[in-house]
Amino acid sequence: MSNYTNSPCAACKFLRRKCTSDCVFAPYFPPEEPTKFANVHRIFGASNVSKILHEVAPHQREDAVNSLAYEAEARLNDPVYGCVGAISVLQRQVLRLQRELEETNADLMRYASCLGSETTSAYGGRRG
Amino acid sequence: MSNYTNSPCAACKFLRRKCTSDCVFAPYFPPEEPTKFANVHRIFGASNVSKILHEVAPHQREDAVNSLAYEAEARLNDPVYGCVGAISVLQRQVLRLQRELEETNADLMRYASCLGSETTSAYGGRRG
Repeated sequence: MSNYTNSPCAACKFLRRKCTSDCVFAPYFPPEEPTKFANVHRIFGASNVSKILHEVAPHQREDAVNSLAYEAEARLNDPVYGCVGAISVLQRQVLRLQRELEETNADLMRYASCLGSETTSAYGGRRG
Repeated sequence: MSNYTNSPCAACKFLRRKCTSDCVFAPYFPPEEPTKFANVHRIFGASNVSKILHEVAPHQREDAVNSLAYEAEARLNDPVYGCVGAISVLQRQVLRLQRELEETNADLMRYASCLGSETTSAYGGRRG
């Protein structure tokens, strides 16, 4: 049964089955969030989600469910790329930032060497 | 049938079914790459993959299959986070690069203003 209420968890309600005290879904799919289960069911299927939950340690199951829910939502929003689309966007952003940082560092080096020669010339001027 | 040989495609071979000329999997799961289908089947299930392929336009199906294969492999390597793990790593990298770029830009501004005053002082020195 769900940890939160006496209702069956969102998974058992969706699958129209009895929610028992040892239900593997109940702790992660409360009845208040029916879409979370509907999404992972639509993309991965209930039995694959259950298989993954049984494969991971109990303390990691919440993270596993949340990452599956994230992936499922991304795939429903973008059936072609799913969350791999987000990876491509982030990879391009990293490359752009790395290039920008390299250019800014190069500018900084130019300023530093320029400042060095200006300082030398200033001191030189004072000495001469 | 597979586009590449007379063998059934990797999906039909895996599912032990006849590979017909209108097989939705055949163009994207050649018999030479059996793991690609085995992975997406294990994570998404054949019927969900077929559903997604029918949802997207034919010219986008190859991208869809490749992103599903990428997600499936990531989930098999990391059952807890799957490719959401890569998203977290990239998001942290973007934040780190943005911070570094801000700091470098601040350094650049300090150098620029310093160079401005050094130049003034050098000219001032020359004038005095």
